[in-house]
Amino acid sequence: MSTVNEKIAKLREVMKERNIFAYYIPSSDFHESEYVGSYFKSREFVSGFTGSAGLVVVTQEEAILWTDGRYFIQAEQEIEGTELVLFRQGEKDVKTPKKYLEKVMPNGSKLGFDGRVINAKEGLDFEKVLSKKEVTISYNEDLVDLIWENRPELPKEKSFLLDVKYAGKSTSEKLVELRKEMKKKKSTSHILTTLDDIAWLYNFRGRDIKFSPVTLAYSVITESEAVLFVDKSKLSEEICAEFAKDNVEVKAYNDIYEYVKNIEGAVLVDLERMNYAIYKNLPKDVTKVKAQNPTILSKAIKNSVEIENIRNSHLKDGVACTKFMIWLKQNIGKTTITEITAAQKMEELRKEQDLFIEPSFNTISAYKDHAAMMHYSATEQNQYTLEPEHLYLIDSGGQYFDGTTDITRTIALGEVDEEIKKHFTAVVRGMLTLSNARFLHGVRGLNLDILARKPLWDMMLDYRCGTGHGIGFLLNVHEAPNGFRWKIVPERNDSCELEVGMVTTNEPGVYVGGSHGIRIENELIVQELENNEYGQFLHFETVTFAPIDLDAINPKYMNEEEKQMLNNYHKQVFEKISPFLSSEEQEILKGYTKEI
Amino acid sequence: MSTVNEKIAKLREVMKERNIFAYYIPSSDFHESEYVGSYFKSREFVSGFTGSAGLVVVTQEEAILWTDGRYFIQAEQEIEGTELVLFRQGEKDVKTPKKYLEKVMPNGSKLGFDGRVINAKEGLDFEKVLSKKEVTISYNEDLVDLIWENRPELPKEKSFLLDVKYAGKSTSEKLVELRKEMKKKKSTSHILTTLDDIAWLYNFRGRDIKFSPVTLAYSVITESEAVLFVDKSKLSEEICAEFAKDNVEVKAYNDIYEYVKNIEGAVLVDLERMNYAIYKNLPKDVTKVKAQNPTILSKAIKNSVEIENIRNSHLKDGVACTKFMIWLKQNIGKTTITEITAAQKMEELRKEQDLFIEPSFNTISAYKDHAAMMHYSATEQNQYTLEPEHLYLIDSGGQYFDGTTDITRTIALGEVDEEIKKHFTAVVRGMLTLSNARFLHGVRGLNLDILARKPLWDMMLDYRCGTGHGIGFLLNVHEAPNGFRWKIVPERNDSCELEVGMVTTNEPGVYVGGSHGIRIENELIVQELENNEYGQFLHFETVTFAPIDLDAINPKYMNEEEKQMLNNYHKQVFEKISPFLSSEEQEILKGYTKEI
Repeated sequence: MSTVNEKIAKLREVMKERNIFAYYIPSSDFHESEYVGSYFKSREFVSGFTGSAGLVVVTQEEAILWTDGRYFIQAEQEIEGTELVLFRQGEKDVKTPKKYLEKVMPNGSKLGFDGRVINAKEGLDFEKVLSKKEVTISYNEDLVDLIWENRPELPKEKSFLLDVKYAGKSTSEKLVELRKEMKKKKSTSHILTTLDDIAWLYNFRGRDIKFSPVTLAYSVITESEAVLFVDKSKLSEEICAEFAKDNVEVKAYNDIYEYVKNIEGAVLVDLERMNYAIYKNLPKDVTKVKAQNPTILSKAIKNSVEIENIRNSHLKDGVACTKFMIWLKQNIGKTTITEITAAQKMEELRKEQDLFIEPSFNTISAYKDHAAMMHYSATEQNQYTLEPEHLYLIDSGGQYFDGTTDITRTIALGEVDEEIKKHFTAVVRGMLTLSNARFLHGVRGLNLDILARKPLWDMMLDYRCGTGHGIGFLLNVHEAPNGFRWKIVPERNDSCELEVGMVTTNEPGVYVGGSHGIRIENELIVQELENNEYGQFLHFETVTFAPIDLDAINPKYMNEEEKQMLNNYHKQVFEKISPFLSSEEQEILKGYTKEI
Repeated sequence: MSTVNEKIAKLREVMKERNIFAYYIPSSDFHESEYVGSYFKSREFVSGFTGSAGLVVVTQEEAILWTDGRYFIQAEQEIEGTELVLFRQGEKDVKTPKKYLEKVMPNGSKLGFDGRVINAKEGLDFEKVLSKKEVTISYNEDLVDLIWENRPELPKEKSFLLDVKYAGKSTSEKLVELRKEMKKKKSTSHILTTLDDIAWLYNFRGRDIKFSPVTLAYSVITESEAVLFVDKSKLSEEICAEFAKDNVEVKAYNDIYEYVKNIEGAVLVDLERMNYAIYKNLPKDVTKVKAQNPTILSKAIKNSVEIENIRNSHLKDGVACTKFMIWLKQNIGKTTITEITAAQKMEELRKEQDLFIEPSFNTISAYKDHAAMMHYSATEQNQYTLEPEHLYLIDSGGQYFDGTTDITRTIALGEVDEEIKKHFTAVVRGMLTLSNARFLHGVRGLNLDILARKPLWDMMLDYRCGTGHGIGFLLNVHEAPNGFRWKIVPERNDSCELEVGMVTTNEPGVYVGGSHGIRIENELIVQELENNEYGQFLHFETVTFAPIDLDAINPKYMNEEEKQMLNNYHKQVFEKISPFLSSEEQEILKGYTKEI
């Protein structure tokens, strides 16, 4: 296998042949996915840097890797000995890739990238920034592909149907609604490239990306047609029959690029959810209606069947988590348990549950100070063995036919000191206060975030992230456009007005570097309350049921309402989970959920 | 005096002579002021409608008055018998003025208005909307002036200097800072038309507008010059000397319109704070840098001298309010007190205070169900006489040399029923929780609003307005850009990030139509707390000190922290206010502020 420097040299050769001054390699796939398959790891292939976020720019003189604070140390180690220079994103005086290119690109030179891995907004930004220097853009060729021997193939996993008993609405119904939205926005066609939106619309799922049950595909919907671009070998006869019934036409995965060249009328374009190559292939004379992809909102507002399913999947998840907590507390100090074996145990317990498919993300299994790292990932090298003391945090979730789950519990493995109890209790107080909020329609996560954060801010502590994110239905564990966050971050698209049926996680935490990490995460569904002269009041239905460890709580830090909220919650946990437990487990759960 | 129909007929004549199809008459002055003097009441002159908000459009066929929900009944009565038709703003299917004009204006016709009473943003919106119909705009003539016999004169009130011992910063210093901001925004000149910004910058005040201590003026600031356009007869020798010292050049009030025709370079333009006539008079070849007027933020962030003064003015205000409460509770049922005489008493008590100038707005003095109307104004005809029962609300404030105040107290004049106590206690709980918040720098009012509103939302009640507004220093009682509100309303400009030194009111309430109204209002200054690894923590310093009526509180609705916050607050009220009271009053205050 070539070294990084050799790969960069080869890349420079093909760049030179094409008169490309700089080549830009991000970490994306063709669909703006959060997780990408190995076929798409061009940046990792060229640079040797394996972190999830980063990008590389190569010129004849320089080769630069950008990554963010989570990965500075790892990136330094992984690029050591190569000619790559690390640019630390977010640090003072560190140029962004755009600023860097703006500076180094000579007048009239050429920038290259694969237009399929850049979204249209980014591409247009490049055009704008570089137009002053009359830089041209070459986006039609994947140069990394030319130098990548033995590149992994595109995934070939079979797709599967999602029965309407799970999805709640047929594809035909969804298409009718989508076309209504398209009409409202005065558009005659709509191009979908985000995989979860496509999977949702056509009621099918796949295994092309780990943790995200989707199939690589594109789609174009017009007033009368629905065309799905997908590798046909992934579709069973059953799926094909279903698609035929809904008048969904299937074309080859890559045909989209030619197909859009002949599109007519007014195209609904979501610049952040369409790749630049597709955008550039649109005919010059079509009207581009810039708007958010309407499926984003339709998908986020779960229908009544989905909601009933979500309740079920969460019950099963709660049973698995409760059993895990019992197992852990009973075995700690008696058998060897490591961060990795604990995570495996959690996965086994989920696998015992009906309709389980796979985990919904890479489990965070973190003991002691490891839990202070929000995105910690245990490896054989770095992991701890759990001891009968201190806190252990497990953040995990499942993909079930009846929903996607995401739950975090932090568990005391023995005595914990008073400061930790104070922190733990504050996290619980915040989580419960947000869960029990009542609010008017029109409210955004922005307005409610402080309910979860207040007990920490009162102690001048904070968690440096949002309080929660939207979540899909047997889809992505992070789903726009709902969420809880106090800061306005437009590009995050997670602060929409909360609508009945939206599902959001509620996961405040405390992270003290070198010491401990605490996070408690439940999921909430927006539901109606009274509609009165002031408007439509809303509240949250909690769907996550698993004990919150009383061993790490000191009730003296809670007021009466807070104690009541915790007791009410634990009462429900017992009622809902105990029917699925053995009588011995039931006795233990009774203790875990006792009134304080 | 002519009738409304006669005035409309005359207006149509002058419109016809000028070939103007529609004439547009808003309620503004030349400076986007919240309150306007009688010279500027063109809409009221033409229509006979005296409400504070409304606008009129006259065509040869129609004459329409728009106003909002507060004024529907009043407007109907006042325009009865005229040819004016009422368009109820906000009601379904009611066209906005812009939509109306878009519909009725013939192709190629002419729209007229006085370009000085329309801001540049509105004017540009008109241009955009009407360009499709090739409508031209005539903005250089005030047609109402032509038909208005005996129009009130422009005010001739004398201006007065605000000593740096009150203002905290000299004009020279403020000019240096403003020029720095102009430079940052790559502009070489800046046009100020908002009166409070001008008064703030040049450290002078006036009496041209009731409740707003400002002088009618414009200003142009360049890198080397500062020109003030003002009626020179308003300026004393002392002021002129001071202006000369700061190199402020004085020109006649109306000269601005010619002056800006010769402006050069790059002009910083705040479209919402500059009238359309000035905007249109700018030479075609100047660069217009669109940005918020930088004085908005500088003025909102009070300096340390202003803050010390604000504390003092609030102490005096608190003394007046405390004496008022004692007087009211002691005399109710013994002497006749009406809503108007109560408001007069409040003003008398303020007048006894050092450095008092005038009220900062029209006092809201409202008994029983009158208090349920947020903008109630007592008149001889509609007012109640106060009885020894139920609640009385007084919302009032003062303009002092050392600051502007705004305070609301709701006082039990006898026994109040349990529902009212529950509502009153909820308002107090919300007010105190917001006052005691701790939060990170970067937080906006949007994020904190729910702290005040939560006790009401928990009962599915609401007040249909923001929780609080910014406030000036011996300036406008409503001042951008800070405030508390949960809904994002961009045109309100009151949801900026909270900065140390900003002053905001905190005034939740309950308004039950036909029954009672409750509002408790304190003012808060943003102050620093710890700066730690999570960022700069901030909190509020309360500067308003007057008892919150315990007779309307039932402590059983409060938790321990809430009781503690109230007791702490009342302890401070006693400590700060009692030194200014007689020993008899001190004893009473002791009772008003006793621990619960």
